[in-house]
Amino acid sequence: MSLWDGRFDGAPDEEMLAFSESLGTDLQMWAEDLQGSEAHATMLAEVGLLSAEERDAIIGGLRAIGEELRSGAWTPTAADEDIHMAVEGRLAERIGAVAGKLHTARSRNDQVATDVRLWLRARLRVLDARLAELIGALLDRVEADGRTLIPGYTHLQRGQPAWLGHHLLAYAWAFARDRERVAGALARVNLSPLGGAAMAGTPFPIDRARTAELLGFDGVVENAMDAVAARDHQLEAVAACAIAASHLSRLAEELVLWCSAEFGFVRLGEAWSTGSSIMPQKRNPDAAELVRGKTGRVYGALVSLLTQVKGLPMAYNRDLQEDKVALFDAVGQTTACVSVMTGCVGSLAVIGGPDLRGDGSLATELADALAGRGVPFREAHKAVGRLVRLTEERGATLASLTAVDLQAEHPAFEEADLARLDPEAAAERRTSRGGTAWSEVERQVGLLRETL
Amino acid sequence: MSLWDGRFDGAPDEEMLAFSESLGTDLQMWAEDLQGSEAHATMLAEVGLLSAEERDAIIGGLRAIGEELRSGAWTPTAADEDIHMAVEGRLAERIGAVAGKLHTARSRNDQVATDVRLWLRARLRVLDARLAELIGALLDRVEADGRTLIPGYTHLQRGQPAWLGHHLLAYAWAFARDRERVAGALARVNLSPLGGAAMAGTPFPIDRARTAELLGFDGVVENAMDAVAARDHQLEAVAACAIAASHLSRLAEELVLWCSAEFGFVRLGEAWSTGSSIMPQKRNPDAAELVRGKTGRVYGALVSLLTQVKGLPMAYNRDLQEDKVALFDAVGQTTACVSVMTGCVGSLAVIGGPDLRGDGSLATELADALAGRGVPFREAHKAVGRLVRLTEERGATLASLTAVDLQAEHPAFEEADLARLDPEAAAERRTSRGGTAWSEVERQVGLLRETL
Amino acid sequence: MSLWDGRFDGAPDEEMLAFSESLGTDLQMWAEDLQGSEAHATMLAEVGLLSAEERDAIIGGLRAIGEELRSGAWTPTAADEDIHMAVEGRLAERIGAVAGKLHTARSRNDQVATDVRLWLRARLRVLDARLAELIGALLDRVEADGRTLIPGYTHLQRGQPAWLGHHLLAYAWAFARDRERVAGALARVNLSPLGGAAMAGTPFPIDRARTAELLGFDGVVENAMDAVAARDHQLEAVAACAIAASHLSRLAEELVLWCSAEFGFVRLGEAWSTGSSIMPQKRNPDAAELVRGKTGRVYGALVSLLTQVKGLPMAYNRDLQEDKVALFDAVGQTTACVSVMTGCVGSLAVIGGPDLRGDGSLATELADALAGRGVPFREAHKAVGRLVRLTEERGATLASLTAVDLQAEHPAFEEADLARLDPEAAAERRTSRGGTAWSEVERQVGLLRETL
Amino acid sequence: MSLWDGRFDGAPDEEMLAFSESLGTDLQMWAEDLQGSEAHATMLAEVGLLSAEERDAIIGGLRAIGEELRSGAWTPTAADEDIHMAVEGRLAERIGAVAGKLHTARSRNDQVATDVRLWLRARLRVLDARLAELIGALLDRVEADGRTLIPGYTHLQRGQPAWLGHHLLAYAWAFARDRERVAGALARVNLSPLGGAAMAGTPFPIDRARTAELLGFDGVVENAMDAVAARDHQLEAVAACAIAASHLSRLAEELVLWCSAEFGFVRLGEAWSTGSSIMPQKRNPDAAELVRGKTGRVYGALVSLLTQVKGLPMAYNRDLQEDKVALFDAVGQTTACVSVMTGCVGSLAVIGGPDLRGDGSLATELADALAGRGVPFREAHKAVGRLVRLTEERGATLASLTAVDLQAEHPAFEEADLARLDPEAAAERRTSRGGTAWSEVERQVGLLRETL
Repeated sequence: MSLWDGRFDGAPDEEMLAFSESLGTDLQMWAEDLQGSEAHATMLAEVGLLSAEERDAIIGGLRAIGEELRSGAWTPTAADEDIHMAVEGRLAERIGAVAGKLHTARSRNDQVATDVRLWLRARLRVLDARLAELIGALLDRVEADGRTLIPGYTHLQRGQPAWLGHHLLAYAWAFARDRERVAGALARVNLSPLGGAAMAGTPFPIDRARTAELLGFDGVVENAMDAVAARDHQLEAVAACAIAASHLSRLAEELVLWCSAEFGFVRLGEAWSTGSSIMPQKRNPDAAELVRGKTGRVYGALVSLLTQVKGLPMAYNRDLQEDKVALFDAVGQTTACVSVMTGCVGSLAVIGGPDLRGDGSLATELADALAGRGVPFREAHKAVGRLVRLTEERGATLASLTAVDLQAEHPAFEEADLARLDPEAAAERRTSRGGTAWSEVERQVGLLRETL
Repeated sequence: MSLWDGRFDGAPDEEMLAFSESLGTDLQMWAEDLQGSEAHATMLAEVGLLSAEERDAIIGGLRAIGEELRSGAWTPTAADEDIHMAVEGRLAERIGAVAGKLHTARSRNDQVATDVRLWLRARLRVLDARLAELIGALLDRVEADGRTLIPGYTHLQRGQPAWLGHHLLAYAWAFARDRERVAGALARVNLSPLGGAAMAGTPFPIDRARTAELLGFDGVVENAMDAVAARDHQLEAVAACAIAASHLSRLAEELVLWCSAEFGFVRLGEAWSTGSSIMPQKRNPDAAELVRGKTGRVYGALVSLLTQVKGLPMAYNRDLQEDKVALFDAVGQTTACVSVMTGCVGSLAVIGGPDLRGDGSLATELADALAGRGVPFREAHKAVGRLVRLTEERGATLASLTAVDLQAEHPAFEEADLARLDPEAAAERRTSRGGTAWSEVERQVGLLRETL
Repeated sequence: MSLWDGRFDGAPDEEMLAFSESLGTDLQMWAEDLQGSEAHATMLAEVGLLSAEERDAIIGGLRAIGEELRSGAWTPTAADEDIHMAVEGRLAERIGAVAGKLHTARSRNDQVATDVRLWLRARLRVLDARLAELIGALLDRVEADGRTLIPGYTHLQRGQPAWLGHHLLAYAWAFARDRERVAGALARVNLSPLGGAAMAGTPFPIDRARTAELLGFDGVVENAMDAVAARDHQLEAVAACAIAASHLSRLAEELVLWCSAEFGFVRLGEAWSTGSSIMPQKRNPDAAELVRGKTGRVYGALVSLLTQVKGLPMAYNRDLQEDKVALFDAVGQTTACVSVMTGCVGSLAVIGGPDLRGDGSLATELADALAGRGVPFREAHKAVGRLVRLTEERGATLASLTAVDLQAEHPAFEEADLARLDPEAAAERRTSRGGTAWSEVERQVGLLRETL
Repeated sequence: MSLWDGRFDGAPDEEMLAFSESLGTDLQMWAEDLQGSEAHATMLAEVGLLSAEERDAIIGGLRAIGEELRSGAWTPTAADEDIHMAVEGRLAERIGAVAGKLHTARSRNDQVATDVRLWLRARLRVLDARLAELIGALLDRVEADGRTLIPGYTHLQRGQPAWLGHHLLAYAWAFARDRERVAGALARVNLSPLGGAAMAGTPFPIDRARTAELLGFDGVVENAMDAVAARDHQLEAVAACAIAASHLSRLAEELVLWCSAEFGFVRLGEAWSTGSSIMPQKRNPDAAELVRGKTGRVYGALVSLLTQVKGLPMAYNRDLQEDKVALFDAVGQTTACVSVMTGCVGSLAVIGGPDLRGDGSLATELADALAGRGVPFREAHKAVGRLVRLTEERGATLASLTAVDLQAEHPAFEEADLARLDPEAAAERRTSRGGTAWSEVERQVGLLRETL
């Protein structure tokens, strides 16, 4: 069966059928296709384009097909080309020629656009919920183990001591912003294109606001050509996924580092680790590595979609069939990554950081001591830099410094400054808003809990 | 001069200096760097970390440097490495050691993060204004020439007649959504990282809310590590640019098509066209082609930024210096493209579409006629498909059809249906919400005007 | 079953199993996995690490599994995690504990690397063959219809008349270079990583050259760490696909343009076209549009792979499992696109270009006439530019020019120059090497035929 | 001045001039532009299209302009639009109207295509030389410090002991393949498009082989339309850069890891490191981080170019002006990164790896011992896995194992197997081709030296 039997002589090439088939992808949208059709039929009857009997036959048929699909009693095959053709054909089998009336005032262009928006809306809501769970898991981890001291790094060099909780909260805030972006995408997604028809609207007296209401949309895409040609809502959703994936990749990298023998700050639960086929001792943080690797997949999907729409004239072009491959994969993989990361964070056994007594990461304490006495910070910085070199030349740590050493470099040093070289005190001293002091960590946990 | 003279023996390699120099890019941010420093100095004095005299000396110095930069009396050189070092060095030259106090409770990490956010906030506001102008130019064009009939296309095949205004409005709506995305990015951009210091905050009693207020930020980035490590606000801004660029590329493609001899719907103003070095007759739509080509540049910038942050551990890593190259180029080029497109749209001479009498794009009229009489749309579609083939076999157009032809294919046809084959009437018949009927075009112009 | 039962307490999380499963992708490589294992067993026996009986049992088992997979008598399930584990488990079921000896001196790292190279080698050879077929189809089309005159375009503005054959040959040459790039990728792919083991080689006295020979590799990847960690051969293959996809997208764009009512140069065969669900007259060049759209998919795969390897330390990391998703899709889709394009080119009905008599694209003929008489080309160009304006102001074409007109603009014009304004002669006049003259078209067809 | 004064009424918009200006980018190509023009003039004279006097005037003028550009006596300005227009205008100023004869039988399309190929050829040769230097630096480092034992990693977990030399050689081989790819790109780049003219060739009796020879090209791009429209040679060059950048990013990541306090294997020279503005102790591996960050820039350039050519019809379109921005940046940045990495590798102070006695990375030794006695490897793997758990439960290392422990897990263990738990011996035992044994390291150094 083809929609355009009347006009063509021949059949498509077999290879063309295989090439243009999209059922493997869009079968995911069957429920949305039925939902959209039911709303359209309901509205057609309300405006008098279907009789009550016709509407009931169509809706009954659609619901029966839904049951068949749910139970597996009927499954579309590749020969059906796509889910929309499959359902259309099945409906005709079940209720006869009246099925053809469902397509009054509707084109596949607006039909598919509607289905994709319904699908995407549902999945973005799931993604948002998963992000909230991940934030929750991070906050739980902060509360359980956050007061573990680790080096805060810049350039992967130890910078200043920091609580693990301070570090993990940086990710929690990033994921909170990812939720804001998902909400922004949802606002653009949740508008109804139904009724745009091929690209010019329709002469039939349809009620677009009514189908939008039936389908739970917040409004309609006003322009019919825009309704079928726009893909920016999809791009925005995938861009939000790509940004979230970048955050996931950063956290995944940290977990991989922290699980290494060299860092050894944490241990990932066995449920999220694997061993090796050749090396019996291995315990690999595979879940984190896979999350990091899938970043590429989500970035690739974004490039795929951006490329597709580049230079496309109005309105629908068949290129856009491919959009679902990238869209579905990006949203699905990102959601899975968020969920797996939640599992990883929940499974962490926190072992702790290195002993930071005498560590170079305390050097700022000395510079701050001078600056607090009115020494220009740049001058203080240089004096302490020389002290660091001194201890390196000695083959010792900052713990070896004496009051004499300090005062030899800068007269404003006082003996009591040596007491600043305590790692925990150094962390606790940073009480500025958002600093690593535990009180600030706790305050942020509270702020983030309110968003969940 | 180097910030870390105290600790190092040697100097950087000359090649390293050239490689790591970023002045060529971040010189653009000089005003923001001064602005951020002035706010920091003001706050330091308010909380007692600077005396009034120190504050006045510093702020006086900063303002004098601003004058020098504005007038060209002083220009940083590549040896200054970046704009922040250049200003710091210049300030010390002008006011002496007290300059070093400006860096109390501040790191280059939060300083640069602040400057970039200030820069980006200003440029996103400009981009938003330019997008509004482009929408305005499109609406002006719709009002001036929108009631010109052209074919509405799908698959670049003529589909149904449409007013040019209907077609142009599809773009206006897309650009309106681009503005929403820019606003979303702005919400994430306009938060103050100042006071985050290196990544752990500071022991000094700074007032982050106060610097945020002085700089016009809506709030602060709560977590200090997040403050210096986050780049998702930049990614979001560039993603918004990339999506806008995709819209620009589509409109540019249409202008190129429409300016071709084959389409000939419009003529681009000479101010936006160029000729050829070899072919004297040429009048090329270069502005539109360049806009289309720059899409690649903006997409590339997005990939560049996404790649940079992939797998980066906390907090700041030097990789991130490169972010400005991509960010500045993406925002700058997108803004220029929007502006050039506004010029192009304003310069268009609308010539008009082809004569659509008898054109295949009227076939839907006949199918709709049948469907309006209760014939299932699928059946109507097939009947009209056969009529199209009939006219093709005759080597004629739909204008050749007679009532006899119609009724031979389907008994529900009526002689009056032939009257539907009028192109303008076909466009005007599509009065559904967002359809191509002129009343709907006018209504949308009103809706969009309200957003400007 | 798991490879690391001995070392772990617990089992992986169900979600982890689903997340890390790759069977859906790597099932495609089952034949290569068996092939690699058979070569390994053969070598192990040759160097004395397996007895002849053990070798026979293993190889017999592998072949039986091959039969089962081919016939469908046995199909791995997702619980098997990946094809390698599935085959390993199945072999143990069939031949018992001796199956475990197959893994002597081999890790999954080098095993999978080998399988992927075998898979990719085979598919790149297919891609090369398909590209050759596409070039052949283009040459056939050139010979059949190449002497059809169309405008040669720059900026989509008519430039100079050209034979369709000249235009199509530009694509044939591009695809010929794609074959060179595929050959380059093959040279890097066709080296054996087998024997690299986990990343450090093995103490067992294996013979890597022998397994390379048995598997038809051109040599070995010398360094064991490189053998398991390198992905640049995959990147190179996908980059070659992406470049080929860019060529396909350009040709697809032309077909879409040429099939439009406005250009109308060709008609795509019905086998590669589709109709519309709402507009009965439509005949859409879907195959070409899908090829153009799939460009995004191939570009996306390249970005996906590039992102995955960015910043990955040696040697194997689990991120790399994801490489096959992108690799298989890119190679598969590109090959399908090449094949579909061959079908499209073969199906074209060439209708012809517009009547170019008097067309602006003949203007260069007049400038060339002057230049041939020693007038500096820039001066000639300006004179003809003024003639073009003159005819536009008249509302006429170049055909309206008289000898008086010519000589009014430049005294070096001769009356005979008017005879140059013949479109076919203009094309035939360009006999420079690679020019549009038919003799040059024919010569190039000959050169390209030799490469097939 | 404009090339198309004759045909246009008005001047370009100021904004259009700024938007379309490319001098900032293509000024880099001035020498190539002069070189191409001189070859063209030489050939024109040889075939009689220029007199000897005209040729001498033109070539004299071009050389004088070269002197001016070299010395800075004359510098084009943005008003010149691009380097080609600037030179053309300057030549006319210097030698008068005869300058216009240089453009006989040449278009800007083939002129620019020639210039870019000359530019790219020279820069790819430089890139190749820099890659050879980097390989040399790696080999020097292997010879100087390669016999330092470090853990070989998979999943960033310690796998098996390996010599640093084995690890570094994996990169040397990767860069050797990058050179092969650069050579492949050069083969496609080094063909002459000159004489393709606008896209259809020319009626003038030019000699394309002669200009190709004069410019050192290996041959000509046969088809004139291909000559001006092809960009795949640029894409191939940038793809080769992107793949090399991926290798650089991996090595950079390792340097960053190895410079961390936690790994501490090496120390990067001060010349390639920087300090911190706030933390006096910091010594950051900035050069490596910048190399890693610039990966994004090169990837982005590839996406930029791929996007530009997507869907572009023949032949030249103005979109392609943008290609140079991405091309020049990608080649330039990659070359700089290779060079900086050479400096980094040369500056490394190798400190050494952790003490691996008793380390889990020796576990494979025990499994190999069993497998060497005919125990199926899978069985051996499980027995050793249990031994690893045993030592973990004891809170001890593998060094704590006794012969009794071994035999309790598997009867085939022998007391002498404990002697295998020596890290250096473990590395030296892996003598398979390409294994980590030092003899294999030395052999590979020899192989690679031969390629330099």
